[in-house]
Amino acid sequence: MAEPVAVTDPHDPRLHDYTSLTDVELRRRREPAEGLFIAEGEKVIRRALQAGYPMRSMLLGDKWLDALRDVVDEAEAPVYVVGDDLAEQVTGYHVHRGALASMQRKPLPDPAGVLAGARRVVVMEAVNDHTNIGAIFRSAAALGMDAVLLSPDCADPLYRRSVKVSMGAVFSVPYARLAAWPRDLYGTVKDAGFRLLALTPAERATALPDLPVRELPRLALLLGAEGPGLSPKALAAADTLVRIPMAHGIDSLNVGAAAAVAFYAVARGPQ
Amino acid sequence: MAEPVAVTDPHDPRLHDYTSLTDVELRRRREPAEGLFIAEGEKVIRRALQAGYPMRSMLLGDKWLDALRDVVDEAEAPVYVVGDDLAEQVTGYHVHRGALASMQRKPLPDPAGVLAGARRVVVMEAVNDHTNIGAIFRSAAALGMDAVLLSPDCADPLYRRSVKVSMGAVFSVPYARLAAWPRDLYGTVKDAGFRLLALTPAERATALPDLPVRELPRLALLLGAEGPGLSPKALAAADTLVRIPMAHGIDSLNVGAAAAVAFYAVARGPQ
Repeated sequence: MAEPVAVTDPHDPRLHDYTSLTDVELRRRREPAEGLFIAEGEKVIRRALQAGYPMRSMLLGDKWLDALRDVVDEAEAPVYVVGDDLAEQVTGYHVHRGALASMQRKPLPDPAGVLAGARRVVVMEAVNDHTNIGAIFRSAAALGMDAVLLSPDCADPLYRRSVKVSMGAVFSVPYARLAAWPRDLYGTVKDAGFRLLALTPAERATALPDLPVRELPRLALLLGAEGPGLSPKALAAADTLVRIPMAHGIDSLNVGAAAAVAFYAVARGPQ
Repeated sequence: MAEPVAVTDPHDPRLHDYTSLTDVELRRRREPAEGLFIAEGEKVIRRALQAGYPMRSMLLGDKWLDALRDVVDEAEAPVYVVGDDLAEQVTGYHVHRGALASMQRKPLPDPAGVLAGARRVVVMEAVNDHTNIGAIFRSAAALGMDAVLLSPDCADPLYRRSVKVSMGAVFSVPYARLAAWPRDLYGTVKDAGFRLLALTPAERATALPDLPVRELPRLALLLGAEGPGLSPKALAAADTLVRIPMAHGIDSLNVGAAAAVAFYAVARGPQ
């Protein structure tokens, strides 16, 4: 059990995990290097703990001690209690959710391991917007996708903003990062028996409702970033191109909406 | 044809339509009262014109004159050319899309008129977040919903942010505002032969994939705001409660993703 410790010096080295949280470039280098990520807000902190991530420390406004009393009581990591001003000085922003936890990363599983029991998989290529990554994870989890694979240049799902937008869903769906792109689409995904579908607006693609999803025991859905979409080499690796039919002369959905629709359409496989 | 006019005085009364664009409270009162809305960026301006909204005036950075040359040449409304600093002084923000147009609103159609030819309708209750309204319109248009009805307390789809997030889809789908809530759900929607479906996370609701959508010639899908969801009186008006099945212990989708999934599932009616 942790006894909360009041901290009043913004330069206290014990707060190092929480410094300069608004400096995206700095944090996206530092966090993986130091093996941590930041969970923000009561709900997300609880979900990170439930998912088995060890806590390194917690930074709380004193108003939040009661709401998180059980977490504090069970924590073996130190809990630092700070005023709003100090929290803002350290992190660089007004922490309106009042509670931050620095969590220990776990080693990412091997892609083959993640695929072993899966039937419906999302593969993202170069999705490097943290909000979009979080939104896609939230929909993937909610709509029953079994696992997520990331291309080497996808952003970090454990970055604070991704975690927050996902509402903690990044903890619920197993994910791994492919090392060689697009080679691993062949050697790791397709060789494991997955039909690789690429979501694209291309007219020659099969309309999503016409896809015989129930006949596909293992299916991997490839998504590109908002704007550029999938690269030619990713499209070339796909077994089937799939498009969401559009009406009213609209030429695209936003990537979060498109992903949600595709997950809903493919997630129900053979029963 | 309009001859572009250089304006250098931020207090020039001809720029009145564009003043204080960042003051949401002010603008949401002023724009309907003055019968205008603001289209931002080349693409959205073109779509507003295509949809038949008359232009009151245009405010352009001089870099944008070439890209919009054909629009300027055809415009009967005045075109004001301003420097970046002046645009910011007038509007209150850095207009990075470089082109704004003040468009004349058209009278909203009667709900019964909007419903006349429709088979798949969205009904929003109290959605007052401009981003969400825009996102829902974009998905509704793309995924083939025929019309949108708004409860009296929904936000304005023609507010600048809604228009922008919708990528102009608010111009593509006919919409109207119900005057009496929830009474018009009965008198206007259900009496016109629409099966009223309410989207809800309630466990007792019918799972969306089990809904016999092809047997429903006319269907209206009721959506509530992120967070509170539908009111008890709206739920009571519904013929059927519908839920999106969730996995991995996730309890909700964001409203944009949920709406997109529901539209995809219901939009394909009897052929």
